[in-house]
Amino acid sequence: MNRKVVSDLFSLVRSRNPLVHHITNMVTINDCANVTLAIGASPVMATSVEEVEEMVQLANALVLNIGTIQAETFSAMLLAGKAANEKGIPVIFDPVGVGATTYRKKVAGELLAKISVAIIRGNASEIDSLIGGKGKTRGVDAGDNSLDSKELAMKAANLFSCVVVVSGKVDIVSNGKEIVQIENGDIWLTKVTGTGCMTSTLIASFAGTTDDYFSASIAGMSAMSLAGEQARRKLSEGAGIGQFKVKLMDEIFHLDENIWGKEVSILES
Amino acid sequence: MNRKVVSDLFSLVRSRNPLVHHITNMVTINDCANVTLAIGASPVMATSVEEVEEMVQLANALVLNIGTIQAETFSAMLLAGKAANEKGIPVIFDPVGVGATTYRKKVAGELLAKISVAIIRGNASEIDSLIGGKGKTRGVDAGDNSLDSKELAMKAANLFSCVVVVSGKVDIVSNGKEIVQIENGDIWLTKVTGTGCMTSTLIASFAGTTDDYFSASIAGMSAMSLAGEQARRKLSEGAGIGQFKVKLMDEIFHLDENIWGKEVSILES
Amino acid sequence: MNRKVVSDLFSLVRSRNPLVHHITNMVTINDCANVTLAIGASPVMATSVEEVEEMVQLANALVLNIGTIQAETFSAMLLAGKAANEKGIPVIFDPVGVGATTYRKKVAGELLAKISVAIIRGNASEIDSLIGGKGKTRGVDAGDNSLDSKELAMKAANLFSCVVVVSGKVDIVSNGKEIVQIENGDIWLTKVTGTGCMTSTLIASFAGTTDDYFSASIAGMSAMSLAGEQARRKLSEGAGIGQFKVKLMDEIFHLDENIWGKEVSILES
Repeated sequence: MNRKVVSDLFSLVRSRNPLVHHITNMVTINDCANVTLAIGASPVMATSVEEVEEMVQLANALVLNIGTIQAETFSAMLLAGKAANEKGIPVIFDPVGVGATTYRKKVAGELLAKISVAIIRGNASEIDSLIGGKGKTRGVDAGDNSLDSKELAMKAANLFSCVVVVSGKVDIVSNGKEIVQIENGDIWLTKVTGTGCMTSTLIASFAGTTDDYFSASIAGMSAMSLAGEQARRKLSEGAGIGQFKVKLMDEIFHLDENIWGKEVSILES
Repeated sequence: MNRKVVSDLFSLVRSRNPLVHHITNMVTINDCANVTLAIGASPVMATSVEEVEEMVQLANALVLNIGTIQAETFSAMLLAGKAANEKGIPVIFDPVGVGATTYRKKVAGELLAKISVAIIRGNASEIDSLIGGKGKTRGVDAGDNSLDSKELAMKAANLFSCVVVVSGKVDIVSNGKEIVQIENGDIWLTKVTGTGCMTSTLIASFAGTTDDYFSASIAGMSAMSLAGEQARRKLSEGAGIGQFKVKLMDEIFHLDENIWGKEVSILES
Repeated sequence: MNRKVVSDLFSLVRSRNPLVHHITNMVTINDCANVTLAIGASPVMATSVEEVEEMVQLANALVLNIGTIQAETFSAMLLAGKAANEKGIPVIFDPVGVGATTYRKKVAGELLAKISVAIIRGNASEIDSLIGGKGKTRGVDAGDNSLDSKELAMKAANLFSCVVVVSGKVDIVSNGKEIVQIENGDIWLTKVTGTGCMTSTLIASFAGTTDDYFSASIAGMSAMSLAGEQARRKLSEGAGIGQFKVKLMDEIFHLDENIWGKEVSILES
């Protein structure tokens, strides 16, 4: 990891303003669009089979998120993913709750078989499920705390030949050779829906800015964990997850290389 | 009603952390997921016919909300509802705007005929429409103020053999024998979209915690009305429904048996 | 333009409380429902082909927004639009990102051919694309700054025989003869998703209040630009787009003819 390269991405994303095409879930679609704007990129959320291939032609990165996957949306993801591969833009895959049902496993398996993804981001249970483990997913939440996130990230990165991000108390990013740990964060990030989805969006915003997907993943993951930490710290008394979510968006909006340089806590191993 | 039993649910829901499966509308799906987390439960919002039956196997309660009902979502509701009945977890039905169209009446009628619901929550017009009355629903808002909510709740509870919650200026909860009135609340709860849907979610969170659905309904309904009252009281000058909605989520997040015990105003009759 | 007529709409919308039926995108559907309530109207967001025609019978205005258009939703729009024309309620069309894909162009073209719309609101690129220009739409954002909004508004208003609103740094409203410029606003309105969609909703709320669609369009467009300006001014230090969005809703909620009369900056030309 080159700290300067990661740090520079915070101004680069704002000057290059990449277009991030999302095919995502109905729960957090608004938050994902707003966080795209907050970090300095532009969102488009087209999901129709009639237009996703053409929309990809305008985009700099593609997010595929299976949080409320349905048959038609899945078809759109396959079309968009192939178009993204042909065009050479990065595909960021968020396998929300993949361990929860047979259908999600099938969808994720088919996506990974047919589309070359640049980056996968999930919690430990989700990544474990992707590589055939039995990490228990309970709905869309992280289930099994016994999993070793570093091992999972490394294994999955090698299996799928991509960068893998495992979100958790400590976040892990691996490209199959290197491993980086991000030690920022706050427990309240697990008490607001969509912080995982928004992290994938942040990663995609950076991946639409640079070909260095390892650095983009570190930038995106650390942006969320750092903003969460700062937002929590700045809350006034009596605040709960309502104000925390608002403040989280504010912190991401104001995040820059200076704040990042001073506050981020990253270990390489 | 046993006040202690209801009061204890506020810590129980946080320790048991039930999984609440929602098949709900596109308008308030994010708010419902967040309010599930705020009260101490976990949300999952899978809506695809391919997976809802399997998702129900992981869940402790199921919410069916027809706010933006479509044919495919309706099919998913029937599958999920039957699976919930077989598994023995409670189904909470929110008949949003049921009086507005023939299609909604058909959908609601079929759901109630084919699925055994544990709890129904709606406004007076919606509950009146369910029992064949002519209470005018104007879109998804409460329409007719002339209806007697107590009578409606009692009638509907007996007709559908379940607990019925009628939200309004005074909220009514009935199990067909007993009737409870909740006198907390604030008019601004009608000025934010989704407070009804979120109330159904709160009720489901408690119903996923205990088999006593009457107490669960009282806990959920009073949680929203009480939090709304507190949120309004604590707003600073110049605040409007934007800040009110944020504060409402904060208040639900901080609600516990002590606050509830001190502030709730419940009458039994 | 009659300033008094526009100004009076702010109290009229609250007393008449029109029902605004939306068939809209999944990204900003919650914000649109809340802004409808904030200005004093009532929202309903039914999107199913099974019920939209019947729902239109209850409505005072219909919004068609193609932000995440899909085949089934498009069918619903055609049904609802025809029903609205027959009933004589205004149709407000928001051609989100119409220049981005062939599918959106086809959808917009067919809607405008088959349905008589009362008001169109878009950014300069979108309006240019509707009248056959080559204004580059980049995803759903305004693309090309070289376009002359006044000329676009006038041309489109005459071509489609309706009122046209072109949102931008300066907002333009034209009925094909008169042109009005609104000079309020704030750059942060472009940094929150859905401010365009919400503007269309505000316009529809006023158009559901009066037959004078030119005045309704001026009221709705200026309400958003003025509220954005006020919200930005009142933000505390450290606030970002999270708090801005919350404050924006507060400002719209409190907007009345006095604030509007004092603060709005409108030029007729």
